[in-house]
Amino acid sequence: MGSNFGQLFRISTWGESHGGGVGVVVDGCPPQIPLTEADIQVDLDRRRPGQSEVTTPRNEADQAEILSGTFEGQTLGTPIGILVRNKDHRPEAYSEMSEKFRPSHADYTYQAKYGIRNWQGGGRSSARETIGRVAAAAIAKKVINQCFAPDLEILPFVESIGTLKAEVDTSAVTREVIESNIVRSGDPDSVEPMIDLIKKVRADGNSIGGTVGCVIRNVPVGLGMPVFDRLEADLAKGMLSLPATKGFEVGSGFAGTKMTGREHNDAFRMMDGKVRTTSNRSGGVQGGISNGEDIVFRVAFKPTATIMTEQDTISTGYQETELKGRGRHDACVLPRAVPMVESMAALVLVDHMLRQRALCGDSAAGG
Amino acid sequence: MGSNFGQLFRISTWGESHGGGVGVVVDGCPPQIPLTEADIQVDLDRRRPGQSEVTTPRNEADQAEILSGTFEGQTLGTPIGILVRNKDHRPEAYSEMSEKFRPSHADYTYQAKYGIRNWQGGGRSSARETIGRVAAAAIAKKVINQCFAPDLEILPFVESIGTLKAEVDTSAVTREVIESNIVRSGDPDSVEPMIDLIKKVRADGNSIGGTVGCVIRNVPVGLGMPVFDRLEADLAKGMLSLPATKGFEVGSGFAGTKMTGREHNDAFRMMDGKVRTTSNRSGGVQGGISNGEDIVFRVAFKPTATIMTEQDTISTGYQETELKGRGRHDACVLPRAVPMVESMAALVLVDHMLRQRALCGDSAAGG
Amino acid sequence: MGSNFGQLFRISTWGESHGGGVGVVVDGCPPQIPLTEADIQVDLDRRRPGQSEVTTPRNEADQAEILSGTFEGQTLGTPIGILVRNKDHRPEAYSEMSEKFRPSHADYTYQAKYGIRNWQGGGRSSARETIGRVAAAAIAKKVINQCFAPDLEILPFVESIGTLKAEVDTSAVTREVIESNIVRSGDPDSVEPMIDLIKKVRADGNSIGGTVGCVIRNVPVGLGMPVFDRLEADLAKGMLSLPATKGFEVGSGFAGTKMTGREHNDAFRMMDGKVRTTSNRSGGVQGGISNGEDIVFRVAFKPTATIMTEQDTISTGYQETELKGRGRHDACVLPRAVPMVESMAALVLVDHMLRQRALCGDSAAGG
Amino acid sequence: MGSNFGQLFRISTWGESHGGGVGVVVDGCPPQIPLTEADIQVDLDRRRPGQSEVTTPRNEADQAEILSGTFEGQTLGTPIGILVRNKDHRPEAYSEMSEKFRPSHADYTYQAKYGIRNWQGGGRSSARETIGRVAAAAIAKKVINQCFAPDLEILPFVESIGTLKAEVDTSAVTREVIESNIVRSGDPDSVEPMIDLIKKVRADGNSIGGTVGCVIRNVPVGLGMPVFDRLEADLAKGMLSLPATKGFEVGSGFAGTKMTGREHNDAFRMMDGKVRTTSNRSGGVQGGISNGEDIVFRVAFKPTATIMTEQDTISTGYQETELKGRGRHDACVLPRAVPMVESMAALVLVDHMLRQRALCGDSAAGG
Repeated sequence: MGSNFGQLFRISTWGESHGGGVGVVVDGCPPQIPLTEADIQVDLDRRRPGQSEVTTPRNEADQAEILSGTFEGQTLGTPIGILVRNKDHRPEAYSEMSEKFRPSHADYTYQAKYGIRNWQGGGRSSARETIGRVAAAAIAKKVINQCFAPDLEILPFVESIGTLKAEVDTSAVTREVIESNIVRSGDPDSVEPMIDLIKKVRADGNSIGGTVGCVIRNVPVGLGMPVFDRLEADLAKGMLSLPATKGFEVGSGFAGTKMTGREHNDAFRMMDGKVRTTSNRSGGVQGGISNGEDIVFRVAFKPTATIMTEQDTISTGYQETELKGRGRHDACVLPRAVPMVESMAALVLVDHMLRQRALCGDSAAGG
Repeated sequence: MGSNFGQLFRISTWGESHGGGVGVVVDGCPPQIPLTEADIQVDLDRRRPGQSEVTTPRNEADQAEILSGTFEGQTLGTPIGILVRNKDHRPEAYSEMSEKFRPSHADYTYQAKYGIRNWQGGGRSSARETIGRVAAAAIAKKVINQCFAPDLEILPFVESIGTLKAEVDTSAVTREVIESNIVRSGDPDSVEPMIDLIKKVRADGNSIGGTVGCVIRNVPVGLGMPVFDRLEADLAKGMLSLPATKGFEVGSGFAGTKMTGREHNDAFRMMDGKVRTTSNRSGGVQGGISNGEDIVFRVAFKPTATIMTEQDTISTGYQETELKGRGRHDACVLPRAVPMVESMAALVLVDHMLRQRALCGDSAAGG
Repeated sequence: MGSNFGQLFRISTWGESHGGGVGVVVDGCPPQIPLTEADIQVDLDRRRPGQSEVTTPRNEADQAEILSGTFEGQTLGTPIGILVRNKDHRPEAYSEMSEKFRPSHADYTYQAKYGIRNWQGGGRSSARETIGRVAAAAIAKKVINQCFAPDLEILPFVESIGTLKAEVDTSAVTREVIESNIVRSGDPDSVEPMIDLIKKVRADGNSIGGTVGCVIRNVPVGLGMPVFDRLEADLAKGMLSLPATKGFEVGSGFAGTKMTGREHNDAFRMMDGKVRTTSNRSGGVQGGISNGEDIVFRVAFKPTATIMTEQDTISTGYQETELKGRGRHDACVLPRAVPMVESMAALVLVDHMLRQRALCGDSAAGG
Repeated sequence: MGSNFGQLFRISTWGESHGGGVGVVVDGCPPQIPLTEADIQVDLDRRRPGQSEVTTPRNEADQAEILSGTFEGQTLGTPIGILVRNKDHRPEAYSEMSEKFRPSHADYTYQAKYGIRNWQGGGRSSARETIGRVAAAAIAKKVINQCFAPDLEILPFVESIGTLKAEVDTSAVTREVIESNIVRSGDPDSVEPMIDLIKKVRADGNSIGGTVGCVIRNVPVGLGMPVFDRLEADLAKGMLSLPATKGFEVGSGFAGTKMTGREHNDAFRMMDGKVRTTSNRSGGVQGGISNGEDIVFRVAFKPTATIMTEQDTISTGYQETELKGRGRHDACVLPRAVPMVESMAALVLVDHMLRQRALCGDSAAGG
C-alpha cells in the first residue's frame, strides 16, 4: 500500500536502497510510443548522485533495463517493467544504524510502524526509490509530447538555497540556463554564491535546505478534475511524496493570502484569439482545472537530515545515546531535487491527460 | 472522476450549489459506531453560512438526512448515504454569470473542460460541495475516537487574515478559544483587528485571504505509508482540494528551507517511557509516517474571488466585457475554512488508520 | 468497501431495503449526454416488482429523482446523484427475522461479519439494492450509444426456468420478443410452460431457479484489458455480484470443455471487408478483448431462498429453531433478473469504452 | 491498465513471453512474514512447463529472484519485487505468427486494440504471465496461514478432461492425492484414462479442454463484501482472468438452477458449538460473504487453441490464408491450471482478509 501513483498512467515503484535493486512498473502507457532505454537513461543520469562537486560522491551507474512492455522500439500498451540494479553498496557504513535511530530520518517511524526495517541506507525511505519515478516520468514526458501537447515543457529550477534566492522570471527561464549550472539554479547570478554556500555547510559537516520553483508551459486547457483530484491537489500530493519536502504552493501561494481580491484576481482578456488572463496569480489553475496559462508552483525542501555531528538520539533498545552521520550524502538535495520535481509533475499531467481523454475524447485532452 | 476521496474510508460527494441538493456516500465505515443525524448536524452548523456578521448571509438550514447505513442508531458497515437539500436558491442573482466568466473562478475552466456548466452559483465548484465532506468527516471523527485514538483531537484555527497574524502556541491552543470567537482565530488578541479588517474589506466591496493553522494531538505512531501515500502528501492533497487554497506546509515548512540540518533536526529522547523528540520541526511526520508528536500544518487561502467591483472579463461568446460581483459571498473565507480543514484532516487520518489496521493489525493502528 | 463498481464510469450504490431509500452516485459520466428522469424510469419500471402475475406483489413506485450532475437536460460531467425513496415498507412482515436467520439468505453472514444487521427485508442484501445499478446503467447505455457504439444492443433473456429450456438463436432474438412476454423468455414457445411452472411452485410455497442468456451485438473491437481486467472477467464479476447468482459462462462455456481444439477453434475469414470468425465459440472475446463478434454469455440464478415452508434454522441467540417465509417474494427471480443482467453488462462495457479511449484515443474505443 | 489485482494485497504483474522476463510487484503484504525465494520456487515449480509427459516440453528453470521487500528472511511491509528471467526463447518458432493471426488466440484482438503486438509466443497473453501471479500467491498463502487462518487450505484439482469426469468428494480430497498424479486429478481412478486421452489428442495434433474443481477448507466466517465485491464475484473475476477460461460456478452452480428452493436451501444447525449448514449448496458463501463452510467452485478451461493442423485464418495484411501450430504447447492445460486456480483463490482470500481486518479489526478477519 502506498507505492502506486496515478489513476490511469499508474506506476508502482519498488526497491530499497540496499538490496537487489530498485524499479518501477508502468501500467497504462499508451501503445506505439517510441521508447528505448536511452530515453530513460537521460533522466536517470540527471538524477543520479556523483554528478558534480555539490552532490554526494556515491557513484551508481544507475543503468536502466527495460524488462517488458516494448517491442521493436515501441511501447506495446502493456506494463513496462524497469529494473536498476543496486551496485555501490557499502552496508558497513550503516552498521551503527542497525542499533540507533537517525534523527529526522524515517528509521524510528518505519520500525514503529512495521516492527522491522532495512536499516541499510534508509531502505525504502532512501531517495534512491525515486529512480523508479524518474524512469516512469521519462516515459510520461514522451506520451505527453507525442499524444497530447507537443510543446508542453516542465521546467523546475532551484529558486533558493538557505537564504540565497535566485531571481527567476518564470516566463523566460530556459532549460539551457538551468542545466548549464551544477546547482540547477534558474538564475546564473546566483550560482556561485549557492555553490559556495553548499561547500561551506558541507565542510562544516552540516546541511542546508531550499526551494525548487517550477513552470509548466503550453498546458492544454481543461486538465484536472473538480473537487478532490484538482490538478493542484494532485501536484501537491506528488511533490509532498518526495523525500525531504515540507511545503507546496501554487501561483500566488502563501504570499497571496496577504492580498485583497481586487489585487489578486486575474482578469480575462482575448489575446491572439485565445482566452488569456492578464496576470497569473492563479498559477495556471482555476477551480482545480488548467486554464492554459503557465502552471507555476514551488516546493520546500528541508536541510538534509544526515549531518556529520554527534546528535542526541535513542537506540533500538530505547536507550538514550548519540549518533554522528556517516556515509556519503548530499549536503543539499536541491540540485538533485530538480529532476524529481519534474518527474512528479510529468506523472500528474499525463494521468490527467488520459483521464480527460477518457471523459471527453481526444480533442478535449489536448490530443 | 475526481469526486472520491480515501482508499478504505471512501467518500463520494455529489451535488451542485443550485439543484436538488448536495451529499455524500461514505463506503468503508466500520460497523457499530453510534451515529445519528445530530452528530453530523453539529459540524454542518459550524460550516454553514449565515452564522455571524463576518460570513455570507446566505442562509441555508443545511439539514442532513441519513438515508442509509445506520440501524437503531448505529452504523451497519454498509454505505452511509447523506442528503442535504438546497433551499435558499436565488438563481436570478447569477443570471449574468450565464453569459460571462467570473475572473479567478472556475466558470471558464469548467466550460472549456466539459463544454457545459451549471452557471448557477458556481455549480460543482461552489464551496457548498464541502457539505458532503464535513458530513463524512463528522463520522470519521467518531470512528477515530471510538476505534483507534480516543484522545486524538484536530484543532484548526485562523492564523492570519491578510497581514494580521495571530500568535498561536500550537501546543496550548484549545477548541474553546477557537470556537469562542467568530473569526475562529487561535489568538484572542487578534480577534478584534481581524473582524475589523473583514468588515472593512467587505464595506469596500473587496475581499481578503489568510491562513489556517492546524494541530493534531495524540496521534498514534505509525500512520502514513512510505513513498506516495505519505501522511503529509495525503494531507497536502486533501487541503489543496479545498476551494480557494493555494498552499500547504507541514512542520517547519517554507521557513525550514532556510535552516541548516544542525538547526532543523529533531533530537530523540525518552520521556515518560515514550520515544519523543525535543523539538518538532518535522511537524509530527518523519518519512511520511507519524512519529507520535503533534502534527502541525498550515494552509493558504486566497482572497475570495467574488468582489463587488467591475472587472475585466470575457463573455461566453468570447467577447471582452466587464463583470461586477453579485449575490451573497464571504469577504473572507477563513472562519468557515476552519471546519473544512478539520474535515479533510479527519478523512485523511481515518483512512490511514484503517490502512494501518489492515496491514499490521489492531494494535498497530492505535486500536 | 465493496459498493463501488467501475474504474472510470464509477458507480457507488447505497441503501437498504427498508430505510430512507436506495440510490447511486455515478462519477465519470461524460458531459453533454441528454438525460432526464424519464430515461432512468424506463429501466426502473422494467426492474421493479409488481409488474405481472409472475413477480412479487410488493408494489413500489420506485420513482427516481436526479439530484445532481445534470443541467438543462444534459449531463455536466460531474457526479450524478440519484435517489429512490422506499415507500411500501412492511417491517412487521420481517419481525421474526430479527430473531432468526433465514436459511440460504445473508442474515447470518452479515451478522457474523459486522456484529449488526438491518433485519428488515434483508437490508443491504436485498435485491432492492439493484435499483441503483439499473439507474446507473440507464445512463451507461446512453453513453455507449451516443459516444461509442450507436448500434450496440444488450439483449438478455430468460433461457431456462428449472428444467424448462427456451430455444433461443442468439443471432436472431429481438428485444420485442423478449419484452413481449412476462417471463422475458427469448423463445415464445417456452412462455406458457414457464408461466405455469412459476405459478405451480408458488402455489406450492416453493421457488425455482433458472438461467439468463445474453447476447451483445455490434460491439467495437478492442474492448477489454489483458490479464486481470479481461472483458469476460469483468462481466463474470458483474454478474456474480447480482443477488442469487451461482455461475457464469461465456461462449462455449462449460460445454466447450468437452471439445477438442479442432472442434472449438474459431477460424478467421474476411467478410464485407471485416475480420470475422466463422463460428463464435469464443463468445466474442479472445485473450480478454472483444473481437467484434457477438458477445454471448449465460448466468445461473438459484431458486429464491424465501419459501413458505418451515425450515430448520437457528436463532440469533444460537438456538436451533424453525422458520417459515413470510412477506412478498418472487417465486422465481428470472424475469426480473433480465434487466439486472443488462445493467451489469452495460456498466462493464461503458467502463471499458472509457478505458480504451483513455489509452488509445477516440477511434480505438469505437467513438 | 488491467495488470493489477487486489485492493489491499495488490499485485502488479508485468512481462511478455519473450523479452527480458516476467514478474510481479506485491504491494500491501504485511511485515514480518518469513519469506525466502525457496517459498516461491515451490509453487513456480508446480506451475512451470516440462514437468511431466503430459505438459509442454518447453523447459524454463523459472528461477525467482526477490529484488526487494524482504530483509533477513522476513517481509518488510514494503513492495516485494520478483523477477523471473525468460531463458528458453525460440522466437524462430513464432516467425509465421508475425504475419498471421492464430485462430482463437489473442493475436488479432491485441493487434486491433493496440495497433502493435509482440508476436513472439503470444507476448502478454501467454500463460507465462501467470508466473507473477503464482509467485505473489505463494506469499499470499503464507500471510493467510500466519496472520489469519492457520488451517485454511486451498485444494484445486482436475475434475474433468473432455468427457472424462473424476469422481471427487470435496470434503475428503487431499493435496497428497492431487499432487501424486501428473494430471492432478482429484480421483486416482481417473488418472490413467486422462493421461491416455491427453496423449491421444496430442498424438493427433489436437487438444482438449476440461474443468478444475476447488475446495477451500477452514475459511473464517465473514469474508467478502456486500454488493459488488462479493467473495464469489471476486473469485469469478480471478478465475475468468486466467488464460483459456470460459466459465465459473460456485456451490450448486448451473445444476442448482434446476432445483426448487426447498431442495436447494441449506438448513442451519448448531454443531460443536458452531453455526453450520446441513448441506452446502451455497458453496460456502451467502450474500457474498463466507459462512464458514467449505468454499466449493469449478472453472471451465477450453481446449488449447494451438493445434498442429492447418486452420483457416487471415494475415496481418487482412488476406485469407492458413496456419498450422508450431512450437511446444500443452495439448491440455488442465494439469498446469491447478496451481493457477489455487493462486487466484489465494489472492482473493488474502485481500478480503486484509479488508475485513481494516473494517472490523483483528478478530473479525480470522486473525
